[in-house]
Amino acid sequence: MADDALVIFTPSGKRGRVAKGTAVLQAARSLGVDLDSVCGGRGICSKCQVAPGYGDFSKHGVHVAQDALSDVNAVEARYDRVRGLKPGRRLGCQACIEGDVVIDVPAESQVHKQVIRKSATERVMVMDPATRPYLVEVTQPDMHEPSGDFQRLAQALEREWGITGLGADLAVLRQLQPALRKGNWQVTAAVHDAGQGAELTGLWPGLREAPLYGLAIDLGSTTIAGHLVALDDGRVLVSSGVMNPQIRFGEDLMSRVSYVMMNPGGEVEMTRVVQDAMGTLATTLAEDAGIDPHDIMEATVVCNPVMHHLLLGIDPVELGQAPFALATSDSLNLHARDVGLTTIAPAGRCYILPLIAGHVGADAAAVALSEAPEAREELSLIVDVGTNAEIILGNSKRVLACSSPTGPAFEGAQISSGQRAAPGAIEKIRIDPLTKEPRFCIIGNDHWSDTPEFGTPQITGICGSGIIEAVAEMRMSGICDASGLIGSAAQIGSPRSQPAGRTHEYVIHDARPDGPLITVTQGDIRAIQLAKSALYAGARLLMDEMGVDAVDRVVLAGAFGAHISAKHAMVLGMIPDVPLDQVTSAGNAAGTGAQMALCSCKARRQIEAQVHKIHKIETAIEPKFQEHFVAANALPHATDPFTQLRAIAPLPDVSFNTNGSGDGRRRRKRG
Amino acid sequence: MADDALVIFTPSGKRGRVAKGTAVLQAARSLGVDLDSVCGGRGICSKCQVAPGYGDFSKHGVHVAQDALSDVNAVEARYDRVRGLKPGRRLGCQACIEGDVVIDVPAESQVHKQVIRKSATERVMVMDPATRPYLVEVTQPDMHEPSGDFQRLAQALEREWGITGLGADLAVLRQLQPALRKGNWQVTAAVHDAGQGAELTGLWPGLREAPLYGLAIDLGSTTIAGHLVALDDGRVLVSSGVMNPQIRFGEDLMSRVSYVMMNPGGEVEMTRVVQDAMGTLATTLAEDAGIDPHDIMEATVVCNPVMHHLLLGIDPVELGQAPFALATSDSLNLHARDVGLTTIAPAGRCYILPLIAGHVGADAAAVALSEAPEAREELSLIVDVGTNAEIILGNSKRVLACSSPTGPAFEGAQISSGQRAAPGAIEKIRIDPLTKEPRFCIIGNDHWSDTPEFGTPQITGICGSGIIEAVAEMRMSGICDASGLIGSAAQIGSPRSQPAGRTHEYVIHDARPDGPLITVTQGDIRAIQLAKSALYAGARLLMDEMGVDAVDRVVLAGAFGAHISAKHAMVLGMIPDVPLDQVTSAGNAAGTGAQMALCSCKARRQIEAQVHKIHKIETAIEPKFQEHFVAANALPHATDPFTQLRAIAPLPDVSFNTNGSGDGRRRRKRG
Repeated sequence: MADDALVIFTPSGKRGRVAKGTAVLQAARSLGVDLDSVCGGRGICSKCQVAPGYGDFSKHGVHVAQDALSDVNAVEARYDRVRGLKPGRRLGCQACIEGDVVIDVPAESQVHKQVIRKSATERVMVMDPATRPYLVEVTQPDMHEPSGDFQRLAQALEREWGITGLGADLAVLRQLQPALRKGNWQVTAAVHDAGQGAELTGLWPGLREAPLYGLAIDLGSTTIAGHLVALDDGRVLVSSGVMNPQIRFGEDLMSRVSYVMMNPGGEVEMTRVVQDAMGTLATTLAEDAGIDPHDIMEATVVCNPVMHHLLLGIDPVELGQAPFALATSDSLNLHARDVGLTTIAPAGRCYILPLIAGHVGADAAAVALSEAPEAREELSLIVDVGTNAEIILGNSKRVLACSSPTGPAFEGAQISSGQRAAPGAIEKIRIDPLTKEPRFCIIGNDHWSDTPEFGTPQITGICGSGIIEAVAEMRMSGICDASGLIGSAAQIGSPRSQPAGRTHEYVIHDARPDGPLITVTQGDIRAIQLAKSALYAGARLLMDEMGVDAVDRVVLAGAFGAHISAKHAMVLGMIPDVPLDQVTSAGNAAGTGAQMALCSCKARRQIEAQVHKIHKIETAIEPKFQEHFVAANALPHATDPFTQLRAIAPLPDVSFNTNGSGDGRRRRKRG
Repeated sequence: MADDALVIFTPSGKRGRVAKGTAVLQAARSLGVDLDSVCGGRGICSKCQVAPGYGDFSKHGVHVAQDALSDVNAVEARYDRVRGLKPGRRLGCQACIEGDVVIDVPAESQVHKQVIRKSATERVMVMDPATRPYLVEVTQPDMHEPSGDFQRLAQALEREWGITGLGADLAVLRQLQPALRKGNWQVTAAVHDAGQGAELTGLWPGLREAPLYGLAIDLGSTTIAGHLVALDDGRVLVSSGVMNPQIRFGEDLMSRVSYVMMNPGGEVEMTRVVQDAMGTLATTLAEDAGIDPHDIMEATVVCNPVMHHLLLGIDPVELGQAPFALATSDSLNLHARDVGLTTIAPAGRCYILPLIAGHVGADAAAVALSEAPEAREELSLIVDVGTNAEIILGNSKRVLACSSPTGPAFEGAQISSGQRAAPGAIEKIRIDPLTKEPRFCIIGNDHWSDTPEFGTPQITGICGSGIIEAVAEMRMSGICDASGLIGSAAQIGSPRSQPAGRTHEYVIHDARPDGPLITVTQGDIRAIQLAKSALYAGARLLMDEMGVDAVDRVVLAGAFGAHISAKHAMVLGMIPDVPLDQVTSAGNAAGTGAQMALCSCKARRQIEAQVHKIHKIETAIEPKFQEHFVAANALPHATDPFTQLRAIAPLPDVSFNTNGSGDGRRRRKRG
């Protein structure tokens, strides 16, 4: 009888001969099979569960006898009794190989778990977080051979896990001695290693059963969104958002830069409030998920360049003027406390994605990471609409990026009845082409306003997606013309059009005197025209640089992208015309990019390399941007473009008033 | 005529041929000659000054023509006119080699300047600080090729100075953009590199003329001493000390550990006050030296283990009980702000020397670095007397270390008329063996009290060195016996002995009713006996371990070591008997070690390696310590040992009362 046995691991197919009596975990390691373990083979973490197969495996040419693995031992039996093992499962660290065997490693037992991201373009991400937990047994102190508790912990991590050159943050050194003694010299250590050396960032007595957590933050000019992620399998436990409190220093970025110019040192206060808000968001998310915020070991942040500098306490004034020089553009690997994020683990880390250019930020980099246009043959136009629009155009050959100053109109700001997306806001609207009567949906109500189920909810205003639909529907129903001018009641044949000063406005909802009057004014249409012109001009500029007149697909990203109607966006001429089925929403792609950077060091390396390859176009100094901007002011489609012949590119609107154009020029200077 | 020329650099003797027209600085670099430059050859920093020699150099076999170097050019002429060049000096970056030449590099032009440390054992230290200044020209931003200002600065440092992988502290990133623009894209960058990667830690527009500064801190239980050092040549600009404000939580270390035991979390407050005091000390030193405290780029700290943990905010409770486990023992390379040192450069660094053991701290490591017993054949006993005594015994073969709980008596504390060393304190005393009359010196007065020049100064008490001399002189003049008992006036024949309770006391100075009565009481002698017994027992324990009965030389270190009288110390039996000329004072060796670590990365590597080689003896658990302690209570020498035959080792004093011994036992438990 042979002293060794054949072992075949599935699904990897890795195989080899090991000495009989070898534990499955050890066999997996020696054959390079991806089998997880936190406790290092002590039979307590259960991460190394495997499913052995018995009988004939003709595919592998092996017959597995019932006694191919050692009997369930006391450790396994105890684990099964106390915590429960699924039928057919064994603990890889306890079960020993006694004969030829086929062993399946279930997905949840792999170190590098594959996570399928739910997005329009489903992609697989492999878990490879910078911070991982390790259970170790630390040698007790010996006063005859004095050495620090930390040094002995580092030796244990090297001995048991091969971690070398471990450093420690002071915040963890402060917890070290009590934790070691409470755990009776057995501790779970969180070690951060993002390629710049291993650092001890957390410590728990004994085995930490719960996973470590991370926080992906999308720091926008208006909203700060956070996603609390489990670092073992990448699942999002909870997401939430808070207003960016910097709004009180200026609604848009350029106002905030101006604030610092007018109030030197004003960035200090702006930095403080945004850092505080991030800390509060972390606490709130932890509360919502029922976890200790100190178990959040890492955060990743994506943001535009101005927010980037304001978060770091860097005066953003250079970003307000050519040549829009960034203080620093590479990714940053910091302690979370250095960016004022003091509510998570005291030694927690913070990774900030790289910036692409003075106007194209880490948020755009995150979108590029999430959507990976360089991975496709087709030419993708990716538009992340926020207060600024980040626009990426590219395929496997070349990727271009720019930022376009759309202003806040798309978010419902600077719109007469506008409001941010919140319950009560009109988010969808349809106008009957014949009667010119509107019907609409509001956030928080699943029914259309012309159905009995709609009831009598409070209607408060129009949000970003609502105003886009409203203007597009007004154009399609003939309430306004290609120049955006609203006709009088006599012209369009509906009392919904009312005189307002020297122009007209369209009444969507009139609940006076007890409720609001919600209208779309001539000024609202002009604001949307300016915003969509900026967006379209940016996309055109990239298409010029690429030497193309059309794109293969359009991806709408951003929180707003998730709610925008592709059809209405094209009616407005926000985006170039493509087949409707080639317009997809990537949801919050920037947030997804932040989550990817949280879950995968490889993703960090990817985007760090990619930002250097992306060619940046500076819209503010391109004369052609101005041309495209003016040319794009018209509302091109008199009817739904997909029920008609495909419309041609929008024509210049010579009647567009020069004040509006002047406004546009002023806005263009914004970051 | 040859196209190249022979160049010989002195004092290094390095030689080689270089193409004619090569600048001296460039030739020096290509031949590996140590020639300084901060401006990178722009003719503005003058660090590369050289002294060419002309005529026959038979030793080198070369004749140097008058035109061996290029003529003084406009840059040199301007520098000479504006700033002045010493006669015969040339700027190495401007003067070009045109013929065979011998060029002397003066000491002040060497990068690795040799600094001769003034100590009992004069040693040479080579400047090799972790933080160095570099002048660079940074490429201006280009919005068509966007990159961060920091990335372009890093490129310039790599291009001009070969510095790779530069990181930046956020605090410097905040200063970066204004500094670059103010300096018209020329800046002096301070780069810290202690072997763990280069980090930008400071920035000044244009050329910074002044050197960078460092702060060496000796953080004692009672006093915090600081030395402000110029990092170009290692000179100490100013030294100063402040009281350790932790004294209000307990005079000695064990009381402070007890405070934390009684008040969990009490270390937070203790950490805060000591960090604040260090910050204030830094500011004071900078003010005294007339420099900006923000130009202090680095601090090094030496301290005992309890102070170490309290500085870092680590609960020191484990250091109060066996096995005296340190939280961490290795050296620490931190940001200064992480130890609350926020008054120096915002991105300043702090290096904390390694600890040797739970009772033998970074202060002892600094003494070992400064005194380097491993570099000698003779066996050195190095004693650093403070509230605890650190004792090192060693030679080139082996080095041992221990700590002994002497208590604060040697510093004048717990002595009836004791006080700390300050003007008015008696620091020297002599007692006439016949008349038993004393004469003394006080701090701040150069004359003996029995001379007319002494005048009538205010006499306030006895300091540490004074009480040692007083007890030794009382023993030599027969006022007290070998057991330490003070005789009555009748016994010793002098009214200076007065009854005090059930014992007697010796009157040194009686200025009543308008001034103080200064006496040495029986209790004072007991306190000194306990302290010296602990010190002697520690030394004996190391000698036992080394297997020797005598040492070759004794080094007294510590601020107190500088003032102690070797003769009186031997009369008391504080230290083993050695020839008087083999007893030297090393001054503040711990502070010197801190300065060395500040000036030299090599010194850091040395002590980091050395602490692992030092064998540690734990006095608290060695039964023989107790034996030596009890045996050492006697005052061995009835007369000056150096006017008599060399005395034998002290004998046990069987009459020594057990209460005293009991006290000693209790004290021994202190850290």
